[in-house]
Amino acid sequence: METSPLRTKINELPFDVLAVLPLLYVAWADGMITPTEHKELRKRLHELDWIAPEHRETIEAWLDPSNPPSATEYNQWRRALRRAAADLPQSGRTSLATLGAEMASVGGDGAPGLPDEARQALHDLEATLGVAGDEIVDELRADRPSPEDDAPKQLPCSPDALQAYLDGPHADLRNRIRTLLSDPVFSYDPSLGTDAHRERVLYWCKLLANEGLGALAFPKAYGGEGDIRKFIAAFETLSYHDLSLVVKFGVQFGLFGGSVHRLGSQRHHEEYLEDIGSLELPGCFAMSELDHGSNVRDLETTATYDPDTEEFVINTPHDGARKEWIGNAAKHGRLATVFAQLHTEGECYGVHAFIVPIRRSNGTPQPRVRIEDCGEKMGLNGVDNGRVWFDQVRIPRENMLDRYATVHPDGTYESDIPSAGRRFFTMLSTLVGGRISVARSACSAAKSGLAIAVRYGNRRRQFGPQDEPEVPILDYRTHQRRLLPRLAKTYAIHAALENLTEQFGARGPDDSLEDVEAAANALKAYSTWHTTDVLQTAREACGGKGYLAENRIADLKADTDVYTTFEGDNTVLLLQVAKGLLSDFQREFRDMNVFNMVQFVASDLGTRLTEKNPLVRRNTDSAHLRDPEFHAKAFRYRSEALLQSAARRLKKRIGDGMDTYDAFIEVQDHLVTLAKAKSEQIVFDRFDASIREVDDAEVREVLRMLCTLFALEAIESDRGWFLEQNYIEGSKAKAIRHEVNALCSEVRPMAEPLVDAFAIPNACLQAPIAVKQA
Amino acid sequence: METSPLRTKINELPFDVLAVLPLLYVAWADGMITPTEHKELRKRLHELDWIAPEHRETIEAWLDPSNPPSATEYNQWRRALRRAAADLPQSGRTSLATLGAEMASVGGDGAPGLPDEARQALHDLEATLGVAGDEIVDELRADRPSPEDDAPKQLPCSPDALQAYLDGPHADLRNRIRTLLSDPVFSYDPSLGTDAHRERVLYWCKLLANEGLGALAFPKAYGGEGDIRKFIAAFETLSYHDLSLVVKFGVQFGLFGGSVHRLGSQRHHEEYLEDIGSLELPGCFAMSELDHGSNVRDLETTATYDPDTEEFVINTPHDGARKEWIGNAAKHGRLATVFAQLHTEGECYGVHAFIVPIRRSNGTPQPRVRIEDCGEKMGLNGVDNGRVWFDQVRIPRENMLDRYATVHPDGTYESDIPSAGRRFFTMLSTLVGGRISVARSACSAAKSGLAIAVRYGNRRRQFGPQDEPEVPILDYRTHQRRLLPRLAKTYAIHAALENLTEQFGARGPDDSLEDVEAAANALKAYSTWHTTDVLQTAREACGGKGYLAENRIADLKADTDVYTTFEGDNTVLLLQVAKGLLSDFQREFRDMNVFNMVQFVASDLGTRLTEKNPLVRRNTDSAHLRDPEFHAKAFRYRSEALLQSAARRLKKRIGDGMDTYDAFIEVQDHLVTLAKAKSEQIVFDRFDASIREVDDAEVREVLRMLCTLFALEAIESDRGWFLEQNYIEGSKAKAIRHEVNALCSEVRPMAEPLVDAFAIPNACLQAPIAVKQA
Repeated sequence: METSPLRTKINELPFDVLAVLPLLYVAWADGMITPTEHKELRKRLHELDWIAPEHRETIEAWLDPSNPPSATEYNQWRRALRRAAADLPQSGRTSLATLGAEMASVGGDGAPGLPDEARQALHDLEATLGVAGDEIVDELRADRPSPEDDAPKQLPCSPDALQAYLDGPHADLRNRIRTLLSDPVFSYDPSLGTDAHRERVLYWCKLLANEGLGALAFPKAYGGEGDIRKFIAAFETLSYHDLSLVVKFGVQFGLFGGSVHRLGSQRHHEEYLEDIGSLELPGCFAMSELDHGSNVRDLETTATYDPDTEEFVINTPHDGARKEWIGNAAKHGRLATVFAQLHTEGECYGVHAFIVPIRRSNGTPQPRVRIEDCGEKMGLNGVDNGRVWFDQVRIPRENMLDRYATVHPDGTYESDIPSAGRRFFTMLSTLVGGRISVARSACSAAKSGLAIAVRYGNRRRQFGPQDEPEVPILDYRTHQRRLLPRLAKTYAIHAALENLTEQFGARGPDDSLEDVEAAANALKAYSTWHTTDVLQTAREACGGKGYLAENRIADLKADTDVYTTFEGDNTVLLLQVAKGLLSDFQREFRDMNVFNMVQFVASDLGTRLTEKNPLVRRNTDSAHLRDPEFHAKAFRYRSEALLQSAARRLKKRIGDGMDTYDAFIEVQDHLVTLAKAKSEQIVFDRFDASIREVDDAEVREVLRMLCTLFALEAIESDRGWFLEQNYIEGSKAKAIRHEVNALCSEVRPMAEPLVDAFAIPNACLQAPIAVKQA
Repeated sequence: METSPLRTKINELPFDVLAVLPLLYVAWADGMITPTEHKELRKRLHELDWIAPEHRETIEAWLDPSNPPSATEYNQWRRALRRAAADLPQSGRTSLATLGAEMASVGGDGAPGLPDEARQALHDLEATLGVAGDEIVDELRADRPSPEDDAPKQLPCSPDALQAYLDGPHADLRNRIRTLLSDPVFSYDPSLGTDAHRERVLYWCKLLANEGLGALAFPKAYGGEGDIRKFIAAFETLSYHDLSLVVKFGVQFGLFGGSVHRLGSQRHHEEYLEDIGSLELPGCFAMSELDHGSNVRDLETTATYDPDTEEFVINTPHDGARKEWIGNAAKHGRLATVFAQLHTEGECYGVHAFIVPIRRSNGTPQPRVRIEDCGEKMGLNGVDNGRVWFDQVRIPRENMLDRYATVHPDGTYESDIPSAGRRFFTMLSTLVGGRISVARSACSAAKSGLAIAVRYGNRRRQFGPQDEPEVPILDYRTHQRRLLPRLAKTYAIHAALENLTEQFGARGPDDSLEDVEAAANALKAYSTWHTTDVLQTAREACGGKGYLAENRIADLKADTDVYTTFEGDNTVLLLQVAKGLLSDFQREFRDMNVFNMVQFVASDLGTRLTEKNPLVRRNTDSAHLRDPEFHAKAFRYRSEALLQSAARRLKKRIGDGMDTYDAFIEVQDHLVTLAKAKSEQIVFDRFDASIREVDDAEVREVLRMLCTLFALEAIESDRGWFLEQNYIEGSKAKAIRHEVNALCSEVRPMAEPLVDAFAIPNACLQAPIAVKQA
């Protein structure tokens, strides 16, 4: 007789717990217990008075919707039930109650068996719940492999260690949020319309604020923990839930609160931060205008200083200058950080930020402020986006957020930053945290989509060898090709963003943000486009199931669709990244004397020669193809070569007398290619570095395999460029393709544990999050 | 003084018409008049009793929402109004009424000027309508260039001739449908919920049926025109409107009606076709099952013949065999064509089709039939998809659709097609029309998305040279790169589908459908993926505007998202295409004697050698790159090379003893690549051929430019493959990229006329089609 620890453990259970195990097994059959099921089950169990009170606790813990049994645990129940089912008479209908009685009689506590009235109560319970117990017993008896058992799941490392890697330093915070999100108060009523959805989202934000999550980035003096990293970790974890909640949360605490915190001085912090963090004071971040979305520098709202009254006059000069798409504006915001052109003493000093009251506490707009609802959107309808017009609105001088520049009572303008351009970019850099957060939120949505699609692909069967059972569709190479490289890339992006968040949070107050900002722009574009791509693929990989609203993909797609163009349009961000690279490049050359220059070019050529060595170019060995050194060099070479040729092309055009603006337009697609290449290099380098820091060798091995799959598939996707540059030869391109196929086969058995490690609360994935109406 | 014909024409207008021209100008300022605006304007105009009745008709015609003024006409109004505005005093506020009076006084009919009470009436009207007349007059006076005038629009051919090319042989039918769709009865109430949306869609379908559009493909004897081509042209044109309508229309008339028509015999035609075409008899096409979506051959519903009663017994053996996703089932369908495994005399003869009543005329399900609503979906919520279970439902023997096989009263099975496999595919081939239709519907949705994005990109301004006005974003290379190759590809797909439809409709009753079917599978996948890609790009290219529900992109995206996986999952279809190519290839070789074989291989090699000629490989001349010969050869070479290598790889594996199934799995991604290449070749070849048939040299030139852009961008996108095969060298790949850029610049000024040629009714594009609730 086998005496595995698992078996022993089940056998040690008291008979009354064993008797209801069949019911627990059924309750968790679909991987979740909904709040309604939970309520019903608890009520019913309460009626079974023959269960000892202390055992009841065990049972209730097992029914906790937020804490489902692990797959191992569940399979252990299943095995025990099968054995019991096999011991029962093999003909006729058998109820779960009979199976429970059988279980109770083989239990480990002396096996007193089940009293008759208890057996009858179980029968009644089964009937009330409407469970087709006999079919379940038949299935257990038939030993027909269930998809759950069958789905290949082999992870060559500890699942917990893998999750710990993903959760990083704020695992406790993340788990706290996971528990919160599993609370029934966060569950959805899919019949909510837009208005009710908005109120629900506001209510949820309040709950989160009460938990101290809104203020995480603010100084301790104002109820916070002074750690933007924690705030971003919270934001990322919340993104497993309704994304309207996340965006509202980000607008209030990240953008509005962040602008007061980062652009304001102590006076503003004292006046506002605590109330912002507690959501006593809902507010907006009013930057975008109808005519100026991306081109913030040219926005047209004015803030004109009046020294007679020591006020600023905020004005919308024409309809195109109205504030547009402002989150929290249509309904809840009371204040707004308004970005406007500052005029004083007859001079314009460019864009600055001002605190402007827009709505009274009774909900009506302030005088001379007009507010309109943006109306129904593709998604994110729980966020109240609005338009705002200011008609000569007067605010006190003190309402200017004056950390970087101030206007004295007499109207004199003063700033420590002499250049207007630099001042502008310093102020904009407050957006960096928002971009990192959006990138991470997108990554969470990609994880949700992959979790749904991988689990489906591991269970859904279609076609198969002649006269044999159909096989899980994830066994098909085409299906693996669609999901697994994207899964690997999601791990890579996660790691890169984790690393960037750390760098961002660890900087000193006087450290330059330039590097972080460039990486944030690059990764925001890279991550959000990836998410759009992943969710589209996930939808298609689930076929019609993915199209049903009850499945979360529809909402994930609709909600994240705007991520690629808000918080900085991806293409515009990439052009900024490329321009940054070009000026670094120019600076490097400008600062060099002739000797250095020659050395630089020589060493550069040296590197290139090594990298373009014919032996390497043709090397198709699997070991070489999987060598991270090869990947790192390929990504670096690509960014550098694209940078050099872009610089060359620009220089030639400008040298030929072309206007700089026109020259940039002509090479614009080259610049986007360069910035995309740089983004991928950043992702690889940071993932690679983070893997090297992992202590657990098994986890390291799994991550390395994912990194290899990510890198090789990226090179494969862009093999056109690498071939064109003669960096690789055709034979090597083919070998890379075969290696990607091989890696897909290797990763396939661990696909499901890899998405399990995201630890997405069941409540988030499986409860319908749709806000659609019948 | 200028005397252009346009000026003369305006001057010839009577004074009372001229007096209201400023109002007409304002009414059409946003390119459309909504039904509500229309009602209000008509009512108000009716009050102006000084307008001569016959002139009122002219004015009313100009207010027809379905017949907006052309851009030329509108600009002509604008120019005349500007001149009049310039003649008015240049200071102070000026109303539209004053401008109207001025217009009336310079009119061509003796210019009697406007009586005072008429002027007062105009003033009152202006006030009632809440038009900011003074701002409009100021704008006209300032001669500030309007975006409308400014947007580059140059088409080097007649717009009408281009539209005629696109509309093809059924232009009249298409125009009839455009007019229908512009009728207010087809306009939307965005506050409709799902239930009302479904009823509205049914009502619309009835209107279309009354117009004879549903029966177009049916024989004349049953109210039709016996022309599937007309039906498909109607389907495509309807796809400019709400896609729920289109899908419902397709289910009723194409799938349900088509199955009775194609799989039934005359008895069935007589009994059902007329009522199906008039929508007296709403029905379903019940093929897919929960467990068997793609793998139709293995579906599990049974139809067992009972010779005692001469009935078939239709049964759903288990829950996985329920009919799933059946359109028209949840609500309206009364009959269903049910696909089931036919059992008679103890034998199973595979899948056959049966007419099964599922719902009584009072709306309740038939006895032993269970129906469930699939519930809310990502899109297409105006279609009532349902699930259906049959519990031993008995139907008369005559209900078997017996064109290809029949069961005699005694239970004997008889079919002219001896092979079960062949019989199955013959029956499935009824799906071909559906696939072509879906591909064309997708193409229409792509056109809508492009029309929105191109018009927006031609008007939306952002950034610009230092100290100069901002420029339309379509002037940016990155923006051109996103939209223009996709526009070219849309023209290509349109042409290929038009050609395929013609071939499909022109076939004789005994012609093999094999070629058409393979092309339909290929193009369905190619077109629907293109649409998903185009709509995503269009959404992003419109930024936040694209995300607003009032803009159609949100619904187009949501509605078409399922196109890639319904009516045959794209990946599964492509694998079928590849398998077809492989068996043709095998057959070709099998049928050859040794002599032919040698010749074939030699000639094949010969072609290859020429094509891989180093001179060609390196040829970077623009003339060569734009030569259709180059494109045709490149696409052909790619398909052939991929086919040969796929065959080689399969043969090797099978030769090494691998199971055929496993061998196919191993090369599956290769097969998908092959089928995609073949699809692109089909699109190119058919577009190229259709261009050669165009008589108008200017139209031909425009189309050729689009074809070149499509082809070169396709080669550029897959340059990895061409470089890997050494078909082109790196220098040529770079030259192709530059040529695509150059073509984008050349196509850019005609971008808007190119989308205008789709002739999408304004009512479809600009009225909110969202079925979302506040």
